[in-house]
Parts: sequence; structure tokens; C-alpha cells
Amino acid sequence: MTVPHHHAVLLLSCPDQVGLVSRITHFIFERGGNITDLEEHVDESSQRFTIRVAWDMQGFTIPAEALPEAFAPLGREFQADWHISFTDKRPRMAIMVSGYDHCIQDLLWRHKRGELNCVIPLVISNHRDVEKLCAFYEIPFEYVPVSKENKGEQEAYEIELLRSHEVDVVVLARYMQILSERFVNAFPNRIINIHHSFLPAFVGGNPYRQAFERGVKIIGATSHYVTEVLDEGPIIAQDIIRVSHRDMVKDMIRKGRDLERIVLARAVKAHLEKRVLILGRRTVVFD
Amino acid sequence: MTVPHHHAVLLLSCPDQVGLVSRITHFIFERGGNITDLEEHVDESSQRFTIRVAWDMQGFTIPAEALPEAFAPLGREFQADWHISFTDKRPRMAIMVSGYDHCIQDLLWRHKRGELNCVIPLVISNHRDVEKLCAFYEIPFEYVPVSKENKGEQEAYEIELLRSHEVDVVVLARYMQILSERFVNAFPNRIINIHHSFLPAFVGGNPYRQAFERGVKIIGATSHYVTEVLDEGPIIAQDIIRVSHRDMVKDMIRKGRDLERIVLARAVKAHLEKRVLILGRRTVVFD
Amino acid sequence: MTVPHHHAVLLLSCPDQVGLVSRITHFIFERGGNITDLEEHVDESSQRFTIRVAWDMQGFTIPAEALPEAFAPLGREFQADWHISFTDKRPRMAIMVSGYDHCIQDLLWRHKRGELNCVIPLVISNHRDVEKLCAFYEIPFEYVPVSKENKGEQEAYEIELLRSHEVDVVVLARYMQILSERFVNAFPNRIINIHHSFLPAFVGGNPYRQAFERGVKIIGATSHYVTEVLDEGPIIAQDIIRVSHRDMVKDMIRKGRDLERIVLARAVKAHLEKRVLILGRRTVVFD
Amino acid sequence: MTVPHHHAVLLLSCPDQVGLVSRITHFIFERGGNITDLEEHVDESSQRFTIRVAWDMQGFTIPAEALPEAFAPLGREFQADWHISFTDKRPRMAIMVSGYDHCIQDLLWRHKRGELNCVIPLVISNHRDVEKLCAFYEIPFEYVPVSKENKGEQEAYEIELLRSHEVDVVVLARYMQILSERFVNAFPNRIINIHHSFLPAFVGGNPYRQAFERGVKIIGATSHYVTEVLDEGPIIAQDIIRVSHRDMVKDMIRKGRDLERIVLARAVKAHLEKRVLILGRRTVVFD
Repeated sequence: MTVPHHHAVLLLSCPDQVGLVSRITHFIFERGGNITDLEEHVDESSQRFTIRVAWDMQGFTIPAEALPEAFAPLGREFQADWHISFTDKRPRMAIMVSGYDHCIQDLLWRHKRGELNCVIPLVISNHRDVEKLCAFYEIPFEYVPVSKENKGEQEAYEIELLRSHEVDVVVLARYMQILSERFVNAFPNRIINIHHSFLPAFVGGNPYRQAFERGVKIIGATSHYVTEVLDEGPIIAQDIIRVSHRDMVKDMIRKGRDLERIVLARAVKAHLEKRVLILGRRTVVFD
Repeated sequence: MTVPHHHAVLLLSCPDQVGLVSRITHFIFERGGNITDLEEHVDESSQRFTIRVAWDMQGFTIPAEALPEAFAPLGREFQADWHISFTDKRPRMAIMVSGYDHCIQDLLWRHKRGELNCVIPLVISNHRDVEKLCAFYEIPFEYVPVSKENKGEQEAYEIELLRSHEVDVVVLARYMQILSERFVNAFPNRIINIHHSFLPAFVGGNPYRQAFERGVKIIGATSHYVTEVLDEGPIIAQDIIRVSHRDMVKDMIRKGRDLERIVLARAVKAHLEKRVLILGRRTVVFD
Repeated sequence: MTVPHHHAVLLLSCPDQVGLVSRITHFIFERGGNITDLEEHVDESSQRFTIRVAWDMQGFTIPAEALPEAFAPLGREFQADWHISFTDKRPRMAIMVSGYDHCIQDLLWRHKRGELNCVIPLVISNHRDVEKLCAFYEIPFEYVPVSKENKGEQEAYEIELLRSHEVDVVVLARYMQILSERFVNAFPNRIINIHHSFLPAFVGGNPYRQAFERGVKIIGATSHYVTEVLDEGPIIAQDIIRVSHRDMVKDMIRKGRDLERIVLARAVKAHLEKRVLILGRRTVVFD
Repeated sequence: MTVPHHHAVLLLSCPDQVGLVSRITHFIFERGGNITDLEEHVDESSQRFTIRVAWDMQGFTIPAEALPEAFAPLGREFQADWHISFTDKRPRMAIMVSGYDHCIQDLLWRHKRGELNCVIPLVISNHRDVEKLCAFYEIPFEYVPVSKENKGEQEAYEIELLRSHEVDVVVLARYMQILSERFVNAFPNRIINIHHSFLPAFVGGNPYRQAFERGVKIIGATSHYVTEVLDEGPIIAQDIIRVSHRDMVKDMIRKGRDLERIVLARAVKAHLEKRVLILGRRTVVFD
């Protein structure tokens, strides 16, 4: 078995103009890069060009550490938002969770199984329920109980914790506390939540009860980036499952658990593999 | 090929109590009825018992016309809402439509193909677009243009038309006028609409544009009974289709057409086969 | 919170005749049973009547242990295959597994979470991979390595083990050994397997590779009862997931893992709740 | 409303090598073409590079008719299979059909609605059932009855007809005759069929009966290119629908009709928009 080569991944968006693909791929080609994956998309409504290009770093004439500087002139010229990452530098992902364990046990299992290319330096919870589970998967667990009185203080501590662990992305795996503006702004576009409804239906609390009372025939789950407005952030992934008159709220909760963990895992995987670009309230998710 | 026997179908809901299934099925059994289909459901949240029973009328000792009177004492005792229908008496269904033809062409084709067991005595439209289509399927077409000025008058005429044709159910196959309270009350629980979103998301106008702007990854369609509150009636059927960042509003409209016609056809078929019971804002849809 | 009442569940199939539902429900009614769930189905092709009835044992005038004898005369008269179970007597389920842990970790988690109403007296494996997982969930683990030479002997030991633990059902959660006829016959209609394809497509080994080479756009998983003929037993549950040209065999394997565990869990749950009746090569799965 | 610009679409596959995207996009860029859509994929198993690029012809410095010759040197160098088409030159599509009308009525309606960018110069049928439907949509209808005796002769006539109408693609919309090798070879990779099963399950006749007898819980439909081996051609699109024990063969046929027409329409649309590349037994279908 051969060791897989490391790859560079460029994720870029900018105002559309003629020649972008040609010039970007030429930049890679003339430095000896073999493109292994490329997807581009021009968003008609915003006239914004978006691209994800991955190439083999073997034989590439510029070392990884010098690449951002080499690409910077093109980025400036295109007025682009861009980021280059490398598959051998695994992102650091923290998980925050409350009492329900279905999402976190799924993430930890996938991580161990090699489905999620990241390091998990810590799990933060305001309950002790998943402490043993974290021990089983050998992931550091930090208990940070939150009350009305200490919420501000504890959030400051959590931000500190996440920063000291150099966390790149925070996953809310059914974390039942509403994050403050300060927290959200500390990790812009880097907090991923799972909401247990088909957003924008059933914003807020108790979405399965809301769904039951409205008499819907399908329930859903939505994974999205967290912004300052509750349940309004850009959507990364959604999925649904059928329900019938036989399904009471408790059945929806049970069926929903399967949905939530799969949708969250898909969103997390897409984010970790640098497949997600944010365009205002929408996302581009390259396959 | 043998002629299929006619069947009776009892649809009933009442407060739950011990012995309901036994007593209802005994009523049928002692009169020589062979039950061919039975589904019951007790709704936990309302403690209401619901049942659909179909039985073969061949050899049944009471003629169809005398059956309602014979069952009435049981119905009273159970304080039930109930209705008995017969498969050889086809319901009369009118279709109202505006300019878009995808739903009506699908319904007319299914009707001709034998999928929908009903008579279609007329199609009403405020446009002439589907007139030729109706002629092709030999369904009477009535042009009733509506303007701000004549709306009340024209609605009165439509109600008159529907009544004179002894219509049992009215299907709004993308009829783009909002019906007045008077119209809705003239056909309670007998008007079926198709809304081009996954209700309760995107109530009101331009749901595909709303969906695009919110950046959802799945769009839906919902068929429901029409009540006085717009898009709030009990849901009969829903379905969804995936979209991606590649889908602009026009693509959602195209993909949604396939969805809308299939969801509407399913709801109409369930209603015509007496499979739908209304429980407040929810429905029981027997398979 | 009130303790839920215990229920009896009758699962019955017999040649169709007039009056079956009436007489069965009357049997329950006259002994004071409140039916909480009833589904019946007449299979047109075999003219076989099938029913599942659940009723509350509180206030029922016959004790659980005397019920089978009381029902026996009706069963004989109807020439029925029937079985009565009680929700307070949890079935005993063994799991057999090889190296892949996705199905077993899912089953053990669901079991702990209360989704599967059963006792798991043991896990048998021909590998040690899941031993720690079983310890975490406090389920007895039995290591039974199998080689060409000892296969017959080890199978005999396994049958002995399963019998001594009074196992009601055996779940093959990706157990990679083909069971002998003797083993299958020791637990007729009580061994549930998960096959990682949409049966009957891709019978046998390496179904994902077969799927890849055939270029299908959808892959599936199938849970079925094990019979003497490989991959030919009655199907309980199936589901699918989309793939594209971007998915190599390894991606299908990854996507398939999500599918396999959900399909297996659904089949196991339906079996444990006595919702599955076998009609030759087909099954009736009551909702 | 502005007239949409015409676009060129290059569809190309060749052995993978460094620099392909760069050189192809550079070819377009240096001639003033604005790329509006690009997808590429390297098939790992065959090490074949595939690409679809669309660009605006407005301001392009080479006229459409000279483009193939201009691109030919690159094509040769890359040892590529390639084809350039133009959105203002609509492909010519013939439909062959027998007695069932669900697929053809759907295609003709979509064509009229503008969903399928093609010309339909004729419909060929061995029955007269859809003659009126064709008249309604103003599509020429050719009745070519086929018997055991005249089959060879009639096929020769059909090939002649299709050639004289300069047909680019032939769609078998439930055409119930097996085409001869000669016919298939006359239109290589240009005949699209709909098979009413989830291939490779249930090859051959009566797939719904086969599905019923096997007791599957999901049925499917498959659209594929026709090759000399029955039901073995490269798959373009597949979809599925759930069935239960309540569904007899006739119900599967009814449910399957919705599936067949949607799957066939998707495959036809993808082919017409030059989104499909064949790689041996598999296809690449760009979104």
C-alpha cells in the first residue's frame, strides 16, 4: 500500500470575469501541480465566481509554506476571498454537547473510523452524560456547567479553552445553550450547528412538537453555520424522513435522531474537506 | 376477466372506548359482509379512535341505500363522525386552474388512465391556456375570468356552477386566486390545494424565490385541505426534492413541477378513495 | 410519569374467510381487552389473511400464561399460524459479528438508548475487534475464532451457546462467515442478516465492487431472514442512497455503512415488536 | 427580456496527464471565451480524465463552424474522444413507443413546456394508441406495425426513416420490441431506453412481477444506453419508490409509471444537454 500524496486545496470566491479558471489552473500547471479535482460555479444571482481546486503537492515547485504568498498577487487582482489548505495539516475540531449523545457518539465513531480528517482536542459539555463515552474514544472531556448566573463567565472560559487548543471549528452536537453574540463572533463561520427541523420551518424550541401539531408528513434536520440570529445561518446540509399519523412526538424524536446525526456528519465532513463556501445567506457545497 | 365487486367503505372517528373494532366488525360480519381492508388508529394526543373498513357488498344482506340508516344507531352511540361510501358511486371532482398546466394535465391523464376513480364534470379557469387540453381529454371547460372588480360576482357564479354540477370535491391545480371565506365555507373539507413549498416553510407568494434566498438544500410541495387561513389547512401529502447551489429559482420551479403534480395526485387519490380523516389541524391518511 | 401498561400482541396468518376480524376482536373484547393497535391485510396472491392486534392487559380477564390455551381453539378452527407475545417479556437477542463494527455499535447504542426492547445476553465474534465496545456497553462477549478446519465444531459450539442463553433471535451484524444448513435450521425464521446491496442485485461477495463495475447510480442495503439459500431469504427492510461517478468503491463502502446500520436496525426493531409475518418468500411488515 | 447567448459545449475524455484543465481553458480564454460552466472528473479506476466546459460564444474570436478544426490539434495530442456542440443547434430526437403512453405523454409535454431543448421530427410506434396524442402536440406520427414475419424488413424501414430525418438520438419510451444488433449498431450510444426495474435486478420481462415475487420493499426504474446485450448498457439515471406488502403487481405497475417517466426524462435531458460521457460500462453524468 502506498502512502497517499498530500494535496493542496484552494477555495476561492470573487466577482466573475473572463479567464478566471484559465489563470488559476495555469498558476498551478506552470508550477508542476497535477490537478486531481476541480469544481467551479458562477452564482448567477450575485455574479460571483467560486472554485475549489485540489492538486498533488508531489513535484510542485513551491513548498507549502510559500504557497499563500505566491498566490497572493492573483488573489488581490481578482478581489477574491481565498484560502489554501493542505490535506496533511488536519484541522482541529472541538465538540460542544449537552445531554443527548446521539450526535457526538456518531461523530466520535466516524472520527475513529477515519471518516473525518481532523484532530479532536476536546469535548466541552454542560452535563457529565458523555464523559465516559469520551473516555472510551480517548478524547479529552471538559465539564463546564452553565447556569443563568454564571453563563457570561463560563462562555468566556469556553472561548479561552477553544483558543488555547487552537481550535479551527466548533461543532454543536445538540448543545442546548444559546450562544452569545460574543461567542459567535469569536469563531465567525466556524461554528456548525444541527437543528432538529427542516429549516426555516419550526425555528426555535421543541421543533418536533411544533411539527406534530402542524400535522406535517415529513420531518427534517438542518446543519448550518451559526450566526448572531438564531437558526438563520447559512445551511450546509439538510435531510428528511417520512412520518405518518402513527408517529407521536416521541416517535418523531426517535426517527429524528437518525436524521440529525447523519446530516450533522455530512456537514462536518464537507466543512473539514474545504468543500463549503459561504455566499451571503447561502452556501456553495462542492461535491 | 371478472367484474370487480362493489365495496362499501366506512370512515369513522369518535372518542376512544373499549370494543369499538369488535362492535363495528361484528355489525358487518352479521350482515354477511366480507371485510377486505381494515385500518384503525387511536390518536394518543386527542384520544380519538379512527377507522377505515372496506367490505364486499356481494352477499351483504342490506342494500346500499339502506345501509346508512342501519348503521346510524351505532354512530350515535359512539358519538362518531362517520360516512359510508360505495365504490360504484364515483365522486364528482371539479378542477380549478390558472395558467400553469402541469398539475391539470397530470390529473386528466391519470383520470383517463383509470388511476383516479371519479367523474370530472368540469374544469374552471380564469385563463384560456388549458382549454384545448380539456377538449383533448373531453372534459367540459368553463372560462371564468376574474378581476379585482368582478371577483365577488364571479366567485358566486363559480359556487353556483360547482353546485349545479353536484361536485363532491374541488381540486385547486395551481389556481392562483385566493378564495374568499364564503367559497371555502361552501365546500368545507372538500377543497384540496397544492402549495409549492414544504409547508409551513415559505407560506404565501413566490415560495421558490423564498427558498432560493434562504439557501435551502431541499425544496418541497404540500397538498392540503383549504381552510379560511391561507396555507394553514390540514396536510394530506408532502414530498421533497434535493437542490444545490447550481439551482437558480428557475431550476427550482422546473424541479418543483414534477413534485407538485405527484404530491397533488397522491392527495387527490387518497381523498377519492376515502382514506383521509381530519383530526383538527392534522390528518389520518390510511395506506 | 405513569408506568406503561403491558400489552399482548397477537400475530396471525391463515386462509382468508368471512368474519375473521370480527371473531378475533370479539374474543379480545369479551375478555375485557382494549385494542390499542390493529392492522390486517389480505394477501391477494396467496389468499392469506394476516393480522397484528395489540391490546392492553390491564383489566383483561385471562392471565397472560393462560391466554395461549384460551386462544388455541380459534387458531385451530382458522388453521392459523399464530403467536401471542407480551411486551413485558423482552425477547433475548444475540449478535454475531466479524471485523466491521458499524452495525454492532449502532445496535448496542440503540439498545442502551431504549430503542430496542430486548435483552442482549451475548455477542459472538470470530474477531476480537469489538470486545472493548461490548465491555463499554456491558454486554458479554464470546470470542469464537473460525477456521476451515474447525468450522463445524465451532458452529456446534455456537448453537450450544445460543441455546444455553435461550436466545430468541440471532442478528448477523456483518458476520462474514456463511452459516451451515444445520445452523440455519436450528433457528428457523429467527436469524436476521444485513446484506450490503439492494437485493436481488449483487448477490454474494463484494457487492460494492459489483455495483461500481455495473455503474449503478444508487446503492442499497437489505435486511432479510436467513434461509438455506444465500441472500434469498424473505426481505424485511431495504433502503438506498445515491452515488455518482465521483464515488469509487471505497466511497460506496463508506456511504453504505450509514445505510447498513439503519436498515438493519429497522428490521431488528420490526422483528422485536412482532410486526413481521412471513408469507413464503415475502414478508408482511405492519407499521 | 434579453435573448440568451449561444454557448459552445465541449465534452472530452482522454488518458489523464498534468495540465489538461489549464491547457483546455487557456484555449478558450485566449480566443475570448467566457466559461460559464466547467466540471471535470478523473476516473481513478481507468485513469481517464473527463471534462465538460461551456462558454459564451459572444465575443469568441472563432466562428462556430471553424471551432472543431481549431480544437482538433489539442484533441489529437491528448488522444481524446471529444465533441463540441452549440446550444443554438438543437439535437433531433425521435421517440419509439408501443402501447403504454405514460413516458411519451410526459416527454411531449416537457418538450412543449421548453424543458427539453430538442426538435422531435417523428414518433414511431407499432401501435396506434398514441397517434392522437402526437397530433395534439403536433408531432409527426409514423405507424410501423411489427410481426414475427416482417420484423427485419420493418426495422430496416425504421432505420431508414430515422436517418432520413437526421435523427441524433432515439428514445425508447416503453418500446416493447427487442432491437436487433443491426439497429443498435446504426445508432451507437445514441439509443436511450427506460427499463422498469432497478437494474441489474430483474433483467428481462415482467420485472414488476419478478419484484413482487421476490418480495422487495423498494422498486426502481433505470434509464440506460442500449447496447447489444439486453439491459446491460451504461446506466444514465435511476430512481426508486417504496412498496409494501399492500402493493400487488398492479400497484407496482401504477407506482412504477411515475418513476419511469421521471427517470427517462432526467436521462434524456442530461443527454440532450451533453452532460453524459460513457466510460466502458459506466457513465459520467455532469450535474
